[in-house]
Amino acid sequence: MKPVKVGICGLGTVGSGTFNILQDNAEEITRRVGRSIVVGQIGARRDNPTCDTTDIDITRDIFDVANNPEVDIIVELIGGTSVARELVLTAIENGKHVVTANKALIAEHGNEIFEKAQAKGVMVAFEAAVAGGIPIIKTLREGLSSNKIEWLAGIINGTGNFIMTEMTEKGRAFDDVLKEAQALGYAEADPTFDVEGIDAAHKLTILASIAYGIPLQFEKTYTEGISRITAEDVSFAQEMGYAIKHLGIARRTKAGVELRVHPTLISKKALLANVNGVMNAVMVKGDAVGPTLTYGAGAGALPTGSSVVADIIDVARTLTADPTNRVPHLAFQADQLSDEAVLPMEEIECGFFLNMTIQDRAGVLANITQILSTNGISIESVIQREREGSDLVPLVVMTHDVKERNMNAAIAAIEALPDVAGAVQRIRVENLA
Amino acid sequence: MKPVKVGICGLGTVGSGTFNILQDNAEEITRRVGRSIVVGQIGARRDNPTCDTTDIDITRDIFDVANNPEVDIIVELIGGTSVARELVLTAIENGKHVVTANKALIAEHGNEIFEKAQAKGVMVAFEAAVAGGIPIIKTLREGLSSNKIEWLAGIINGTGNFIMTEMTEKGRAFDDVLKEAQALGYAEADPTFDVEGIDAAHKLTILASIAYGIPLQFEKTYTEGISRITAEDVSFAQEMGYAIKHLGIARRTKAGVELRVHPTLISKKALLANVNGVMNAVMVKGDAVGPTLTYGAGAGALPTGSSVVADIIDVARTLTADPTNRVPHLAFQADQLSDEAVLPMEEIECGFFLNMTIQDRAGVLANITQILSTNGISIESVIQREREGSDLVPLVVMTHDVKERNMNAAIAAIEALPDVAGAVQRIRVENLA
Repeated sequence: MKPVKVGICGLGTVGSGTFNILQDNAEEITRRVGRSIVVGQIGARRDNPTCDTTDIDITRDIFDVANNPEVDIIVELIGGTSVARELVLTAIENGKHVVTANKALIAEHGNEIFEKAQAKGVMVAFEAAVAGGIPIIKTLREGLSSNKIEWLAGIINGTGNFIMTEMTEKGRAFDDVLKEAQALGYAEADPTFDVEGIDAAHKLTILASIAYGIPLQFEKTYTEGISRITAEDVSFAQEMGYAIKHLGIARRTKAGVELRVHPTLISKKALLANVNGVMNAVMVKGDAVGPTLTYGAGAGALPTGSSVVADIIDVARTLTADPTNRVPHLAFQADQLSDEAVLPMEEIECGFFLNMTIQDRAGVLANITQILSTNGISIESVIQREREGSDLVPLVVMTHDVKERNMNAAIAAIEALPDVAGAVQRIRVENLA
Repeated sequence: MKPVKVGICGLGTVGSGTFNILQDNAEEITRRVGRSIVVGQIGARRDNPTCDTTDIDITRDIFDVANNPEVDIIVELIGGTSVARELVLTAIENGKHVVTANKALIAEHGNEIFEKAQAKGVMVAFEAAVAGGIPIIKTLREGLSSNKIEWLAGIINGTGNFIMTEMTEKGRAFDDVLKEAQALGYAEADPTFDVEGIDAAHKLTILASIAYGIPLQFEKTYTEGISRITAEDVSFAQEMGYAIKHLGIARRTKAGVELRVHPTLISKKALLANVNGVMNAVMVKGDAVGPTLTYGAGAGALPTGSSVVADIIDVARTLTADPTNRVPHLAFQADQLSDEAVLPMEEIECGFFLNMTIQDRAGVLANITQILSTNGISIESVIQREREGSDLVPLVVMTHDVKERNMNAAIAAIEALPDVAGAVQRIRVENLA
């Protein structure tokens, strides 16, 4: 069979990984696919010294690649959402298949892109957009296709997990670890996307859509970062048998779908609590299979390139297939997407870890437990500590599951107590089994 | 599109799970596939009270199903290798696609079955044959298709893992836990297949073939069970920071492919060491993606049925596809399989944990370390214990990596020492990262 020609747009970290895998593993890939996959053209503003592009047609204008009639599959690795969107739509318009690693593009413009791809009978593959090298899109869309997905929960941002791991293992403060993460190149100069959960929310939006067959709804995903988490929170959580992880969680309930990214206490014994450093992992609970977990590198040139090239191979295999028999973009047939509501955060139900500073005075704890009880909240455990030379002491309360709405009311009432100093720190608790 | 008709042969545990998933999740499956998947016929010697087969055509002769012109896909869930082989070959001869959960059949007769399927242009899907509900076949064949697989290591027998977990967490003896496993229904009355590693060897044979594109070579897989492992071994291993797990390991080296199932010491901190009870997990190290892990239920009606039905969906999607573009049975094109040698066990290199009983007498340890040194073996750590009221004491030695051949020679020499009582217990040690 004649070779499949790939056009790579963007030769940064992921672009170079993709290019080098296609070159280094060319023989193995050909033995698998039954035809060779070659780089027909590269569109990049500058060369990349890690890539030997001798004899490769390179253009500085990525749209040359999208318009190149020799190219079968466009690989969009430029990042961002504006030019990337235009590039992908142009490629689709030209009848080309698309592979992308761009989570923001898919989460924010996926509905439009998939609709156009569907109309033109081409595929848009995006395994690398979520959790780097972990084939979680394939696992959800195909490996667990016989299941109703009950929930999924993932560590899907390596920077955030590195920070939480260091805070947990070494008792370090957030700011301190963030600076190291920046020095190591794990975190950007502006770390907002990672530490405030936006990157994780992009990925969760995608996972939830393919789990439940709902349109991409990034704007409805609740997003809370880890920058407020203190070394004291981590230490109290550990004392209670928990680790704090920054999780993306999607769950289907009778009332609708939960979509939320926030720091979360999970049992130290849970496998997910033992996923450390920059590694990623996603748990999926299916009604038939039960709980599953997939673990691996969530970023980096070669791990992300691994998923990009696996997608290229998948697309190459179905170039001649009847489009109606392909795996649908969002796992469910485009005309079968569901309009299930995304639940507002007030409707979510989970346990809570509350950390507050109170006056060391008789009756304060009684007032607080009274407020919780009035709001229908039952307590699982309490830690109250003396603090030498201070009449302000920490109080930590762990509650059983309760609606966020009730907890909001309780926290407002607690913060209004004269004997409670400052804000109540609230971290959600999940039992993922 | 017209419904896909499935013929289920065997209505035991996995058959009932498969049937019930197809019924209970029919709506979700149709939304995914774009056509319905219906049970056209069941072949089973007896009914199963967990399945409502009203209005389903049931025959007592499974070959009726293989010969039924209305059936598109045969699902072989009868187990065993003799009749199952005949059934599958008949179905293929009749141009039907096959889905099976039968690891023994694939490991022992897969080469013949795939050759015939290739010739007839039909697919034989076998996700459920390895690690139950975990989509590890799909992960290896498709999700990581851009990688050269360096090694894989799996907990792929739930019964064995349940026993090792109980021995580790509660210090119990092998025989004691085995009896409980039999009472719980985790282990058969004759537990040989599980505890002696034959079941794991079947699964490892399959995983290695799709990792490396080599023919199935069950007869060359080294197989050692867990029945010799003592509570004392487990306790000493823990003291040294290790857990003992029954692993299937495949590794590609320059000299050839390692294929081995045996008890293995791995660091307690490794994710795989924290996979407990009847759960399964497989680590795969790819050259691009790095280390990955997939975890889930390795057995049971619904988890295994989850994989069977996912395979049915995959097959349904490619019914009209050009057979040359399908994912090949052993991940690599049939004419591209490799004849890489499977290494004899003597050529394997790993660390060793040695547990022996010696006379509590000056010079014994010196003699033993001298023998190890002569055989090119360096020691990582030693535990020697007093035993009250006895002059026979335990000696535990952990070595650095060395060829099994050297270790065989050293153990023979150590066992010949007059001050060493009985056999030396040898457990291999792996650093899986």
